[in-house]
Amino acid sequence: MRVLRRLLPNEDIIYLGDTARVPYGTRSPETITRFALQDAQFLLRQGVKLIVIACGTASSIAIDEVRRQSPVPVIGVVEPVAKAAVEVTRNHRVAILGTNATIRSRAIEREVKRLDPLAQVHGLACPLLVPLIENGYVRPEQPILRCVLQEYMHQLIDVKIDTLILGCTHFPLVSEAIREWLPGVCLVDSGEAVAQAVGRELSELSLCNTFSRQGKHSYFVTDTVANFTDIAELFLGEPTGGVGEIRQIELDLG
Amino acid sequence: MRVLRRLLPNEDIIYLGDTARVPYGTRSPETITRFALQDAQFLLRQGVKLIVIACGTASSIAIDEVRRQSPVPVIGVVEPVAKAAVEVTRNHRVAILGTNATIRSRAIEREVKRLDPLAQVHGLACPLLVPLIENGYVRPEQPILRCVLQEYMHQLIDVKIDTLILGCTHFPLVSEAIREWLPGVCLVDSGEAVAQAVGRELSELSLCNTFSRQGKHSYFVTDTVANFTDIAELFLGEPTGGVGEIRQIELDLG
Repeated sequence: MRVLRRLLPNEDIIYLGDTARVPYGTRSPETITRFALQDAQFLLRQGVKLIVIACGTASSIAIDEVRRQSPVPVIGVVEPVAKAAVEVTRNHRVAILGTNATIRSRAIEREVKRLDPLAQVHGLACPLLVPLIENGYVRPEQPILRCVLQEYMHQLIDVKIDTLILGCTHFPLVSEAIREWLPGVCLVDSGEAVAQAVGRELSELSLCNTFSRQGKHSYFVTDTVANFTDIAELFLGEPTGGVGEIRQIELDLG
Repeated sequence: MRVLRRLLPNEDIIYLGDTARVPYGTRSPETITRFALQDAQFLLRQGVKLIVIACGTASSIAIDEVRRQSPVPVIGVVEPVAKAAVEVTRNHRVAILGTNATIRSRAIEREVKRLDPLAQVHGLACPLLVPLIENGYVRPEQPILRCVLQEYMHQLIDVKIDTLILGCTHFPLVSEAIREWLPGVCLVDSGEAVAQAVGRELSELSLCNTFSRQGKHSYFVTDTVANFTDIAELFLGEPTGGVGEIRQIELDLG
């Protein structure tokens, strides 16, 4: 959302955060798909011209089914981050950090290998990073973050990767801490890769907003607005007072 | 569930785990109450004679509303653990570990003070413990568990408590590690306290099952059965193959 707003300032953007049912990354593929379809149906009812699945987990597991049911283009995280990783790697050794569900699905791994058959890909599930980040442990010097990263990152030391895909929307918030463990490794951030893919897709389909006015931004959440604002500031990089209207909706009622 | 099965072996027990929407402890009071009412309605449709809200968060926030809507008695965690704590404390200094929502609600704190007006009560939110335990970090020697407990437990060292309420169903799984930080402090476990309260209530209302046969146990979950079995073994202390039938249901469809 943050990068989209910067790259496509004229576009109206509707954000949906299923805050009453996060995290998706610990759930089964069946449940993730059911939730993702409800999410997409809500957005389609708002009349959107394109859907972005900005969640690594939902992209990895549910995008085929969402595409099957959506009359508008659907862009997920998998293809853009795989493309970006293949473009930057020199030694064809790529690792992916993701939730349990994302890594188990192997979706990003398959896409990297499809684009670069020489690639050696290492998927690493990091289930503790999402709750850590949601509780604000993002500064590199925090002992708990160091301890958790030690547990995960030591598994990558000997693999000699030169490229690391941050396969979950949360992980860019700890990229500074990750970088300390893997000096010289290129981090691929889904935000930048996905926003560029959206720009390309809109342009190819001649769907860009050609008005020169500032786009409108609307935020919908499934838990209360108050429950959303703290964490939203962390992700959006500004107080939610400035981001636009935030409203609570219910997805599971229809 | 584990203690109930031991204390009341003749009772049929229906277990509902809202595995598609856990954890509750990070959500708003409004959402927790909505989910808890859906949970209770499902159990009432099964014809239960008593409902146990075994979740510290749902008990602390939603029990009044569930009781208002339930024709059968509802037993939560709050009153039993407060009663147990007041019975064991000698110096009237009690701490409560819970989720963010539980501690913010102050429900257990109020109940302890109601039963013991001299009590000094310290609530401590431990939001990282649930994801840690769900990912299997329960052994005291694990560095990540030590690191997270260091963050929380050092806040209790100077308070000189003699009693600590484990206000979340997950926390007894790390009681051994907690004990290392607080030698001599009595840990109050919701499982034992709640199961005893259930036994008393059934007995007072003459609702005990007087058949001498072994009770039947049914398990319902909202995510897939496969998603449930790993974590269930951790909590139930036995392979789920032996626990009885496990079925997936949908709560949010009515």
